[in-house]
Amino acid sequence: MSQPFDAPTVIRTKRDGGVLSDAAIDWVIDGYTHGRIPDEQMSALLMAIFLRGMTGAETARWTAAMVGSGDRLDFSDLRRDGKPLALVDKHSTGGVGDKITIPLVPVVMACGGAVPQAAGRGLGHTGGTLDKLESIPGFSAEISTAQIRQQLCDLGAAIFAAGELAPADRKIYALRDVTATTESLPLIASSVMSKKIAEGAEALVLDTKVGSGAFLKTETESRQLARTMVDLGLEAGLVTRALLTDMSTPLGRTVGNAVEVQESLEVLAGGGPPDVVELTLALAKEMLDAAGIDGADPAETLRDGSAMDRFRGLVAAQGGDAAAKLPVGAHIETVTAPRNGTMGHIDAMAVGLAVWRLGAGRAVPGERVQPGAGLRIHRRPGEPVAAGETLFTLYTETRERFAGALSELDGAWAVVDAAPPPQPLIIDRIT
Amino acid sequence: MSQPFDAPTVIRTKRDGGVLSDAAIDWVIDGYTHGRIPDEQMSALLMAIFLRGMTGAETARWTAAMVGSGDRLDFSDLRRDGKPLALVDKHSTGGVGDKITIPLVPVVMACGGAVPQAAGRGLGHTGGTLDKLESIPGFSAEISTAQIRQQLCDLGAAIFAAGELAPADRKIYALRDVTATTESLPLIASSVMSKKIAEGAEALVLDTKVGSGAFLKTETESRQLARTMVDLGLEAGLVTRALLTDMSTPLGRTVGNAVEVQESLEVLAGGGPPDVVELTLALAKEMLDAAGIDGADPAETLRDGSAMDRFRGLVAAQGGDAAAKLPVGAHIETVTAPRNGTMGHIDAMAVGLAVWRLGAGRAVPGERVQPGAGLRIHRRPGEPVAAGETLFTLYTETRERFAGALSELDGAWAVVDAAPPPQPLIIDRIT
Repeated sequence: MSQPFDAPTVIRTKRDGGVLSDAAIDWVIDGYTHGRIPDEQMSALLMAIFLRGMTGAETARWTAAMVGSGDRLDFSDLRRDGKPLALVDKHSTGGVGDKITIPLVPVVMACGGAVPQAAGRGLGHTGGTLDKLESIPGFSAEISTAQIRQQLCDLGAAIFAAGELAPADRKIYALRDVTATTESLPLIASSVMSKKIAEGAEALVLDTKVGSGAFLKTETESRQLARTMVDLGLEAGLVTRALLTDMSTPLGRTVGNAVEVQESLEVLAGGGPPDVVELTLALAKEMLDAAGIDGADPAETLRDGSAMDRFRGLVAAQGGDAAAKLPVGAHIETVTAPRNGTMGHIDAMAVGLAVWRLGAGRAVPGERVQPGAGLRIHRRPGEPVAAGETLFTLYTETRERFAGALSELDGAWAVVDAAPPPQPLIIDRIT
Repeated sequence: MSQPFDAPTVIRTKRDGGVLSDAAIDWVIDGYTHGRIPDEQMSALLMAIFLRGMTGAETARWTAAMVGSGDRLDFSDLRRDGKPLALVDKHSTGGVGDKITIPLVPVVMACGGAVPQAAGRGLGHTGGTLDKLESIPGFSAEISTAQIRQQLCDLGAAIFAAGELAPADRKIYALRDVTATTESLPLIASSVMSKKIAEGAEALVLDTKVGSGAFLKTETESRQLARTMVDLGLEAGLVTRALLTDMSTPLGRTVGNAVEVQESLEVLAGGGPPDVVELTLALAKEMLDAAGIDGADPAETLRDGSAMDRFRGLVAAQGGDAAAKLPVGAHIETVTAPRNGTMGHIDAMAVGLAVWRLGAGRAVPGERVQPGAGLRIHRRPGEPVAAGETLFTLYTETRERFAGALSELDGAWAVVDAAPPPQPLIIDRIT
């Protein structure tokens, strides 16, 4: 036999609970990337992996093979003031109202870090940083590697579409989406880490979500995902650590695209919702520590306007106008309080789905999202509520979307007598 | 939603161990048959079914949906001498040297049965009745339904390619072959029974194989497969029963295509290997009983030549010349006895693979098989062996195939001192 493997044998091995060899994994990823292994064989293998799992070693090799399916960016030759850059990035496993990247990157820039951020688009009920930033008129994440290098040196950050990084992952990700093989720990971990390893950061902080709005629902699973990703990062030579953070409630008071940019600007102006500020500063602290930057005070960059300056510079470099008016959906609907009381729990998943139905997310890859679609949360859990006042404002460009969105919100919140005990936002730190 | 189902949700249900509704199964089979559900989603579902199983009710509905994907033949209107035909068929789950259909159909014809046999081609290490019969010059199984009806009335049998029956099964079968989802009990049972229910028989006897040469290896699995298939037949209105028979050793003294037809002719002439005769008569008895035919003596039809006459008539009706010289591979290789002793066990799977490598089977669907490729077993288990005498003769049209075939045979047999205890051929009867 001139061919070292055949797909049915590889699938059978995993199907029967066996361990795939390094060579078999390399062969599968390369063959699928280049079309020698067809979708139907890959999807059978993905389902076998979903149900049988992968060992740590298999997951590491799968990740490495996906990194190797394209170029791995390398910025270690770049210098600022004659010194190598402190290349550090952050990744969130996806949440509702999770605009943290937008204030966080400028804070880290202002503290002396250099952030090469390969960002993604929204998936299902979760939003994507690129979809949010593209609501800024003119902003583009389709930038060349030369421009990324230039921005890292001159400004300290570039936010770009993962696009050509780990092309195997892009193909597998699309296949997982239609074959119900998304929520697999080794497949999630390898997908995230292949892109992050390829993007050229040298240190990485992972924001691993826990709760209804996260992809993996239990704390045990999320903790295991964080552990797996940290191990994958360390194995690839990245200083890697993770925070485990709450995603049972949306972050901040806005969920959508432009509305989240607006809220991020409030944070950069020194205000904004306390939970968004808390998570931004906690992640900034981790990133600076991972990058070996001492003595900087992230909170000060919000107070003194230096983070806002960095944000404006970054947006301008990528063609955007940070001072332009942000789009707002032409149609507005509100939900009002049925009685006096206190706002109880607000379910992140339900809010995510409501905003997705308003047009902020996509049902199929490539679909256009509405920059002005979104939702504003006027009363967060624990805040007092008066009968008849507005609790939520919904925005969309297509009025017929309100019905579906309102039905998702139905039962996702309640006005109660006693405030629920506050949940800690940062649950744990994994190194 | 105008569409009642979506494929990811159906896949997810089975992936998580749930039960598919009748409507979901109908939707999947119809959608896949007509190309609305793509291969990659079907293969993910098949792998989920492989690993999670299906309930009896799911398997029955899956089978019925596959039957309904094409026409179900109906011969109940046919009459011979003014009476309805005794429509009965047999199916084997696949074995090595399993030529039983060839002598069996003429025996049942001679006893007054009418056999509409939708036959298959070889798969992997197992041979197929069509591949064997097509080694008879001129024989064709591509016959019209009109001709099948005519032959059933005039002769009492027709052997035809399953072709248009249960088109969903044909498509799923091809997909299973390349995605390592073949050896699944509910998928095997529904595949067999969809074709057999659609072919128009009213009674059915299943020869379910047990042992190394069978698709399911353990007696427990084979017994469960037989039980499942009998239940599916009964549910579809067929008088159905099964024999559980040994497939740890090849049947008879020949494995291949033309060589097996030759051996079948010996059986029809009143001779042939005892095990082939025993299984032919046992299955004939079951078929006659299932069809409600009393008083016929199958063994007598072999002695008095009436079964041979029926065979010649059937072959002639389908364009073949039963008196023509059968092809034999141009190249011959032999394996001789290393010492005096007794033939020990001969492994069915290894022999099946050896004959497959000689060119009697196909590596990909649609490939041409060699009619003259095959193997002759000169000493069966328990027979005395003298040093240097021929134990196996191998035939092929392509000499370079010998190396692979001989290597498959290596270790698959042994000359021993004490004869192994004889295995019963017929293990059990399931009704």
